[in-house]
Amino acid sequence: MASRMKALLFDGTRLALATVPRTRPRAGEALVRVSLAGICSTDLEIMRGYMAFRGIPGHEFVGTVVSAPAKKLIGKRVVGEINVPCGACPACRAGLGKHCAARGVLGISKRNGAFAEYLSLPVGNLHVIPDSLSDEKAAFAELVAAACEIPERVIVRRNDTVLVLGDGRLAAMVAQVLATKSARVGVLGLDPRKLAALRKAGIRTHDRRRTAALLHTRDIVIECTGSPAGLPLAAKLARPRGTIVLKSTFHENVVWNPTPLAVDEITVIGSRCGPFEPALELIGGGGVKVLPFLSAVYPLERWEAAFRRARRADAFKVLIRM
Amino acid sequence: MASRMKALLFDGTRLALATVPRTRPRAGEALVRVSLAGICSTDLEIMRGYMAFRGIPGHEFVGTVVSAPAKKLIGKRVVGEINVPCGACPACRAGLGKHCAARGVLGISKRNGAFAEYLSLPVGNLHVIPDSLSDEKAAFAELVAAACEIPERVIVRRNDTVLVLGDGRLAAMVAQVLATKSARVGVLGLDPRKLAALRKAGIRTHDRRRTAALLHTRDIVIECTGSPAGLPLAAKLARPRGTIVLKSTFHENVVWNPTPLAVDEITVIGSRCGPFEPALELIGGGGVKVLPFLSAVYPLERWEAAFRRARRADAFKVLIRM
Repeated sequence: MASRMKALLFDGTRLALATVPRTRPRAGEALVRVSLAGICSTDLEIMRGYMAFRGIPGHEFVGTVVSAPAKKLIGKRVVGEINVPCGACPACRAGLGKHCAARGVLGISKRNGAFAEYLSLPVGNLHVIPDSLSDEKAAFAELVAAACEIPERVIVRRNDTVLVLGDGRLAAMVAQVLATKSARVGVLGLDPRKLAALRKAGIRTHDRRRTAALLHTRDIVIECTGSPAGLPLAAKLARPRGTIVLKSTFHENVVWNPTPLAVDEITVIGSRCGPFEPALELIGGGGVKVLPFLSAVYPLERWEAAFRRARRADAFKVLIRM
Repeated sequence: MASRMKALLFDGTRLALATVPRTRPRAGEALVRVSLAGICSTDLEIMRGYMAFRGIPGHEFVGTVVSAPAKKLIGKRVVGEINVPCGACPACRAGLGKHCAARGVLGISKRNGAFAEYLSLPVGNLHVIPDSLSDEKAAFAELVAAACEIPERVIVRRNDTVLVLGDGRLAAMVAQVLATKSARVGVLGLDPRKLAALRKAGIRTHDRRRTAALLHTRDIVIECTGSPAGLPLAAKLARPRGTIVLKSTFHENVVWNPTPLAVDEITVIGSRCGPFEPALELIGGGGVKVLPFLSAVYPLERWEAAFRRARRADAFKVLIRM
């Protein structure tokens, strides 16, 4: 029994709760007992075929180190970066391991993920969680890190008008992270319940059904809709010579004419995973509020209800307790 | 008779040679007797519905000033910038007149263009052609200026690998302009005759049917295909964290998944019209060779043959003599 574990397994068609061989860490890796795992839009896209992933999905987690080459890690609560690069190729040597062509990505590509009792990651991927931070708050670290990547790639000035497209969990984090840079951040969304929650957290909101006054005006537009319609909409909202940050990854195609990008000389900057240190600091210091955006925590046995909830239009973050 | 002129008129369905009232310059504008007008891919897109333009198309020209508020311009040979901004809005006041929302664009939007015996433009749009430059060479100024806009928006380093997608007239100019910045510029094209002409002008070429070795490797990719397939192809050729410059404008939609832009954190920079001064200098100094890319000059009466020629797969620039 000790060598088996419960996990959610995706076979290319459906997700199911299964008992599988317990994850065994490779050389240099820690074994982590997962406490909480978050459902991300990327997981929902994987169910639709994104990345042609097979195995255990899940890449947002909080857990406790069970075994590790570095003994001082054992027993520590950790979160972890999801890209596992080869360490030897030109991209890795240039410090761009997350762009290593041979990389595995936790629960997304080539590596089993966090919807399991155990996962393994290289020791260097792990970040110890400060004692003051609860598991529930720390479970947002990967999501907030993705938001923290934006100011790593785009200069956001105090007076820049910033519009975040999408009213979901990522948009809520992005809006708060960018509010630490600009005083003029807003979110454009559809769901009145989510927009109300965002306002309650101090974030300005706009209704997507009333965009006329915003068209071609925003200095920076952050595309977090998770939908193929997001980029074409962003191109209408950015001002000439403005900047769009593209965060969404999805399985479907867009039907669109990108000519306005050339005519309006817009810059589009793709952005993926980000740095964990500033994310943990912002969550710990309260600069980014996460608990208002925790919709529910389900036990593993109720994983189907958890995924149903995560797909609901009014859901922010849904966690599964392993 | 003096108040009439010959022009090519587009009624939304077809282009036809017509006799129309002679262009009358507005306040502050010069009247220019057109000598040569170039056929650009944008003109061909206009025939397919791009910009829903009606009137006299054409925006690449060489002509002689007939009348102007500035008397010293009269009799001078000129080329001209095509955007006519309002001069008063925030974009104009910020020096971004080409992004004025109320702008007219010669032969593209709200203003009649260069496929006519006469056109008018504000005096400030005109650039006097040095005596040493022939009409045929000067006719490339608008095209070369569009290429010169790229280093205005992207830093091109000496060792950057630059790949120009498209083997047409714009690609030929872009490759030469960027070769003044980087020693590692190549063109990726399809037509063996055009690729041979590019090589003869000293430009390295790659066959689009053999791209395997180039995938995900180029620091900078310049999309000049004029086709909806260009941007998706560019996204496959740029390295992670690389840059795509989007020059193409077209009428059709793309069916495409932009997710790789986010995953590979690629930057896309839209780029349109550019500065005429460096263009005229590069043409005059021989840094950009234009005559090898002049396919034919037709008299206005043979405009149909000119457009047929411009549409041929092996055509570079086709000029019409007014």
